[in-house]
Amino acid sequence: MNGADLLCDVLLANDVTVCFANPGTSEMHFVAALDRKPEMRCVLGLFEGVVTGAADGYARMTDRPAATLLHTGPGLANGLANMHNARRARSPMINIVGDHASYHLPLDAPLTSDIEGLAAPMSNWVGRVKGPADIVPAAEAAFRASLTPPGVTTLILPADAAWGEVDAISPGKVKLAPLPAVDMAAVRKVAEAIRAAPGRVGMVVRGQAARADALEIAGRIAATGGVRLFSEVLIARMQRGRGRFAPTRIPYPVDAATTTLRDIDVLVLVGAKEPVAFFAYPGKPGRLVPDNCQVLSLAAHGEDLKAALEALADELGIKPTQQFTAARAFPDAPTPSGRLTDDAIAVSVARKLPANAIVCDEAVTSARRFFALSAYAAPHDYMMGTGGSIGGGIPMATGAAIACPDRKVINLEADGSGMYTVQGLWTQAREKLDVVTIVFSNRTYAILHGEMTNVGVNSIGENARRMLDLDHPALDWIALANGMGVEAARADTCERFDALLDSALSRPGPFLIEAVI
Amino acid sequence: MNGADLLCDVLLANDVTVCFANPGTSEMHFVAALDRKPEMRCVLGLFEGVVTGAADGYARMTDRPAATLLHTGPGLANGLANMHNARRARSPMINIVGDHASYHLPLDAPLTSDIEGLAAPMSNWVGRVKGPADIVPAAEAAFRASLTPPGVTTLILPADAAWGEVDAISPGKVKLAPLPAVDMAAVRKVAEAIRAAPGRVGMVVRGQAARADALEIAGRIAATGGVRLFSEVLIARMQRGRGRFAPTRIPYPVDAATTTLRDIDVLVLVGAKEPVAFFAYPGKPGRLVPDNCQVLSLAAHGEDLKAALEALADELGIKPTQQFTAARAFPDAPTPSGRLTDDAIAVSVARKLPANAIVCDEAVTSARRFFALSAYAAPHDYMMGTGGSIGGGIPMATGAAIACPDRKVINLEADGSGMYTVQGLWTQAREKLDVVTIVFSNRTYAILHGEMTNVGVNSIGENARRMLDLDHPALDWIALANGMGVEAARADTCERFDALLDSALSRPGPFLIEAVI
Repeated sequence: MNGADLLCDVLLANDVTVCFANPGTSEMHFVAALDRKPEMRCVLGLFEGVVTGAADGYARMTDRPAATLLHTGPGLANGLANMHNARRARSPMINIVGDHASYHLPLDAPLTSDIEGLAAPMSNWVGRVKGPADIVPAAEAAFRASLTPPGVTTLILPADAAWGEVDAISPGKVKLAPLPAVDMAAVRKVAEAIRAAPGRVGMVVRGQAARADALEIAGRIAATGGVRLFSEVLIARMQRGRGRFAPTRIPYPVDAATTTLRDIDVLVLVGAKEPVAFFAYPGKPGRLVPDNCQVLSLAAHGEDLKAALEALADELGIKPTQQFTAARAFPDAPTPSGRLTDDAIAVSVARKLPANAIVCDEAVTSARRFFALSAYAAPHDYMMGTGGSIGGGIPMATGAAIACPDRKVINLEADGSGMYTVQGLWTQAREKLDVVTIVFSNRTYAILHGEMTNVGVNSIGENARRMLDLDHPALDWIALANGMGVEAARADTCERFDALLDSALSRPGPFLIEAVI
Repeated sequence: MNGADLLCDVLLANDVTVCFANPGTSEMHFVAALDRKPEMRCVLGLFEGVVTGAADGYARMTDRPAATLLHTGPGLANGLANMHNARRARSPMINIVGDHASYHLPLDAPLTSDIEGLAAPMSNWVGRVKGPADIVPAAEAAFRASLTPPGVTTLILPADAAWGEVDAISPGKVKLAPLPAVDMAAVRKVAEAIRAAPGRVGMVVRGQAARADALEIAGRIAATGGVRLFSEVLIARMQRGRGRFAPTRIPYPVDAATTTLRDIDVLVLVGAKEPVAFFAYPGKPGRLVPDNCQVLSLAAHGEDLKAALEALADELGIKPTQQFTAARAFPDAPTPSGRLTDDAIAVSVARKLPANAIVCDEAVTSARRFFALSAYAAPHDYMMGTGGSIGGGIPMATGAAIACPDRKVINLEADGSGMYTVQGLWTQAREKLDVVTIVFSNRTYAILHGEMTNVGVNSIGENARRMLDLDHPALDWIALANGMGVEAARADTCERFDALLDSALSRPGPFLIEAVI
């Protein structure tokens, strides 16, 4: 057997059974090896941003890494933006990047580039296979690094390591370090702070702390301890909907965020980082908590967040029977009608959301209302791009659908954002994925119009308009989707949108709705 | 005025008058500044690979840098693959990458990343504006670096440097160092080698040495001195067609390349690098010249290649009146008919090519015959992706059309390659660019099928097929083009293709022909 075969075996032995791929010549031995492993599901993306974004979506839904297969430095480069999102989401991921044979590198052939240099800024771990004999240790190290703590790993595979002969062995499962024990000193310190400042303690939950079971504990702490529960502005994954505790999302605009947090004396982080302004603006603060606010960590990413919350509840004497406030029913609101608006879409989607759906939200400005309403929707998983890098939505929905074939995936997508990785629709068609993509077609980078106002420009001219607007020509999303084999339809009234959504939800996907707003 | 205004002024003072842009929030002050400069042409790309690829095409046709505007690390990351191609083409380019305000960086906000780290592998020069007072020196250094010698430069612009107030000044033109004098010792050494080994000297021309005037001199040297003239396998730009001397392209397959070069005792490089195998293959060489071949440099990139060729002709006593062999008329060949093939497309396009057209060739396997035939076509400029990074074609054609609004641009595009940066079609529609895109729709990564055979796999299974084939579903290029506002039609016979090409050439573009082969 060769190194490529052995690498596949290491992955499969560790239940890495999906490979999102966009291979090139230097990866042909690896492709040939995958071809001998029908138990590996190989999913082609027509652009590398689709590949890494799908691996991110897959990881968020399974808590397990998928492999990606990328072609040398430029192929990796195309995948970096969604690796950035994945890194910020702390998603496990194993990127396998083919490189020239080691002895070919000094010749500086056209595709040669500094792959380590490219990978490092967007990876938590970078390694290079030194030769065929290094396959097992290198691949096992990459797998381990992807999960302890979860993060993005990049393993560079030179062609001669892939094609070199190795002894036929059967790799075993990598033994992962157990989660560290709960830091009881931190728990006691947080409990003390909660007791000392009732009503003035905030707690930011993310990662495993934003899953239904952990949220339930956090909800009891909130109810009994007078703690206000928050989520970061960009949410990697949160289990949400009726019956679940709904944290307050810290708003994106700086002024709104500081107002939200102004009465907080102690902010407790549970797998989260201290919230900061997404961008700096002249004369506005970067940190969002008040200057005198104390910031405490209950438990960090990679630790057992649920156990830490349980320990905190215990320490506070909160019983598992304690009630917490959760949304029970959808609030009364008239059924939207007439001309379609982003708010009307939010209402319809939240109302009609099937139980156990997965929502991938990259609608940026257009879906802000959806998140508020989603607390009243059927129980679901909610995910966003987490690094601020545009182009995560369609790939993330693709990967989530691969991870969870029995669940409906709803992708709320902005037209501007959707175009960055529009190629992902083809993968949805090829793999027959159950994804409904709703494109909020406002034909503009609406967020940037807002930001122009933020920098003091109230009337824009020709050059700015040509950089901020997507009209002339308008994108025809039905044509784009059809061009990649995805059925699609357009709505510009609430009635038509509702009818399309009903239809899309009643049949297997993929389907795309261009919502003209 | 603020730093952003001053940066625009430095660019405009140095005749950088086109900005390919995909801005984000941290670049809003720069966008506002551009809005105050109607003399700057701002061209929006819906994906950053379009932006950098267009700047590459623009630079190749003008020998001048365009500016690009990219949004922080992830935006830059999306542009890196085509910066890689531009770097290998040695195209001047000034990438302006917005970053957070300097004081915001320590907060590690979601979009924060190591921009210098990302830029370095694909840039010849990287700098960061230190503050508003540093705008002029930093921008001038970037401009200078983009041209001496020509290359890719990346200038990072923190938001507080853009919005900071500066004294209103009018920047002047940057004084560029003159080209170094011709190295006469190198010239004499090459002349001596040519005299010593008539018929056994090869010469590889590229860059300015592949322009019509320099090729004419090289052609005379070839005719009189018994020198064989070559081009690299990937051609950044060559002036080609009837009446021009046509170098032999060194073939892509290693065996064919070594056969082509086997009788060469001395290889002379004129702005070129020593040719090497694109990829390593087990048991095949990496260097393509014979082991005992002497490699000499007549002049390097950034030197005056035409003057060096003139000096060499002088040294060899070759008169400007000396004849050289150039194609005069199109070879007799039957007009293709019936089912469309890639060879038939090559014949039709070469025959019908309008004088002074620009051909951007990213058809990979499908257009190999075109290059041979193009020696007999009307005089034109021919360009390819030069770094082996896929996704350069549509953007390059876009940039070339912006650079040369009075010339027809023909983009020979593979379906696999075209999908990487398909968003460029929208920019062609918006800017009403005169581009005819011919998509060779073979619904496969044909080159990778060949490479599978090269690694010894003759029969492929399900996993490999799913990574190498683009069928199921087939891409509908008419729908894709229409979705972005570009008219399109499909041909699967030679007759229909010819009719479409005639029509597309007779009217201003953009237009796309899906050539089903």
